[in-house]
Amino acid sequence: MNDVHPGIRPLAFLVGTWRGDGAGDYPTIEPFSYDEEIVVDHVGKPFLRSLQRTREATAGTPLHTETGYWRWTGIRPELVIAQPTGVVEVLTGELKGTTLRLRSVLVGTTPTAKEVATTERRIVVEDDVMRYRFSMAAVGREHGLHLEAELRRS
Amino acid sequence: MNDVHPGIRPLAFLVGTWRGDGAGDYPTIEPFSYDEEIVVDHVGKPFLRSLQRTREATAGTPLHTETGYWRWTGIRPELVIAQPTGVVEVLTGELKGTTLRLRSVLVGTTPTAKEVATTERRIVVEDDVMRYRFSMAAVGREHGLHLEAELRRS
Repeated sequence: MNDVHPGIRPLAFLVGTWRGDGAGDYPTIEPFSYDEEIVVDHVGKPFLRSLQRTREATAGTPLHTETGYWRWTGIRPELVIAQPTGVVEVLTGELKGTTLRLRSVLVGTTPTAKEVATTERRIVVEDDVMRYRFSMAAVGREHGLHLEAELRRS
Repeated sequence: MNDVHPGIRPLAFLVGTWRGDGAGDYPTIEPFSYDEEIVVDHVGKPFLRSLQRTREATAGTPLHTETGYWRWTGIRPELVIAQPTGVVEVLTGELKGTTLRLRSVLVGTTPTAKEVATTERRIVVEDDVMRYRFSMAAVGREHGLHLEAELRRS
């Protein structure tokens, strides 16, 4: 694989295969736990590709998946995501050290998808450990925590 | 791999690895040709995943890539796409036989992306041949043809 393109180097700390587990909750659902894999890679161009997959912690059946691309404006991170739940997200935010804080500037849904109004993603990387918190306002509820996970780079 | 989920079976004719070449043009650019690979696969859930990559026909350097998910409402196809150009698309449309015609219901862009207003995708599959036409209104121009390609299932 080529070197990481200089135009995306500030986010190069995300590159890798990350595995771990997380917990989810929301006012409209039962709390649940999951196993997760996130692969962040690149093709030598000024963006990173991300593919995330979660499975039930016990049965191992596929739960959520999403895929998208990281960009770097020179100052800010940008993230675009597509989800098979019929949701797309455009996020922008700040990078401080290796802590990312992103907020949706746009969430779009297909006509038959569940409504998602806003999302927020906080990602902290320390060496080979990634911790994230994902919160959202969805299905008419106020913005609140939905997912929290800790992963390790393998 | 599991069987295609009954909920996405009307689009199962898209599953496969497709390779071929295409030609691109737009009022703001020089005409160009490209090699393309599209992989459409599934994990046994009621959606299909799509990953598309194009390369320069001569030099072989990576050009465009995009990734997303196909859904089926019971009547209509839905498609969500993320692109490293900072663009997301939500499309819906019609399926007649194995001809898909999709129009954007939403195009979103990051603050630093080029403006894309509307997109339209027409995809025709006949046995192991896929032909598509992609048109768009972008960077202030009227809706017009941008890409045309023919691929073969391998």
